[in-house]
Amino acid sequence: MRALWFRFLDWFSRLRGRRPIPREPVSIRPIGVVRNAVTAPRMDGWASVRSDIIVREELSHALDGIEEYSHIIVVFAFDKVPESELKERVRPRGDARLPEQGVLATRSQLRPSPLGVSVVRLLRRRNNILRVQGLDAIDSTPVLDIKPYYPNYDAVQDAAIPGWARALEAAE
Amino acid sequence: MRALWFRFLDWFSRLRGRRPIPREPVSIRPIGVVRNAVTAPRMDGWASVRSDIIVREELSHALDGIEEYSHIIVVFAFDKVPESELKERVRPRGDARLPEQGVLATRSQLRPSPLGVSVVRLLRRRNNILRVQGLDAIDSTPVLDIKPYYPNYDAVQDAAIPGWARALEAAE
Repeated sequence: MRALWFRFLDWFSRLRGRRPIPREPVSIRPIGVVRNAVTAPRMDGWASVRSDIIVREELSHALDGIEEYSHIIVVFAFDKVPESELKERVRPRGDARLPEQGVLATRSQLRPSPLGVSVVRLLRRRNNILRVQGLDAIDSTPVLDIKPYYPNYDAVQDAAIPGWARALEAAE
Repeated sequence: MRALWFRFLDWFSRLRGRRPIPREPVSIRPIGVVRNAVTAPRMDGWASVRSDIIVREELSHALDGIEEYSHIIVVFAFDKVPESELKERVRPRGDARLPEQGVLATRSQLRPSPLGVSVVRLLRRRNNILRVQGLDAIDSTPVLDIKPYYPNYDAVQDAAIPGWARALEAAE
């Protein structure tokens, strides 16, 4: 009965040119795990961190060719954030002087979907193990996807950010 | 019993300095859906496509502040790829002249985790609806996360890619 009602809603939404937001969760099996020396979450100091991404052995050949890229995109799961800590709005970097933002307008971990996306330098590949630099994920973080970085597609050098964020970058 | 065995394996892996790859899938509820005029998958012609991302209404305030960014990162689900089509290796763009690559060394949809990551221009926000340009996702695609784009963090203008990929870009 419930399913029928959803199907009706679906049909009705399409009729009106609207798209229903899928209710079914997407289930993603980790393809690997992060191994590094960082055991507790932290704000800064990731640039020099070297990590190994251990990929499931049966996916080893799915990495073939990635060693030809200098940078990769790593999608990982924030698996240490309890649901009770999720927030609708946050202060960037927990700094009371900065304007409160919607959590989706920040890179905070307290977001509705526990996903991190980071661009990192690929130092080397050995079979199913990628050594990377600058990954801001702690030891044992589940890795969900790895993608080659294409400047033509992924780099927007002149992207605009708010004034307070520019000031923050300049101060670093 | 099975759980106990897994816990033993876990402990043993840590003892040896290894990290077990998590077996539990990560479950992610879509935060929104794509609405545009593209109803069938395609390779090219995305740059001019305008899409609306309809975010769940209860997350409307979680977007506050995002309108101050010129670009956002959209994480979405390839929900139309049957599991039987997943591949370990693919030819980029299905082109027989290009060298076969591991699927994780490409942006192909036939990857183990059905995740897409795209950088798009944010044209405007109206409450829970973001209008964007250049999102390479078809109508009704589930959106899993939205993040502001920070050039300092996300842009690597001089990232290296293989020669065949450079030649491909130059030919476009």
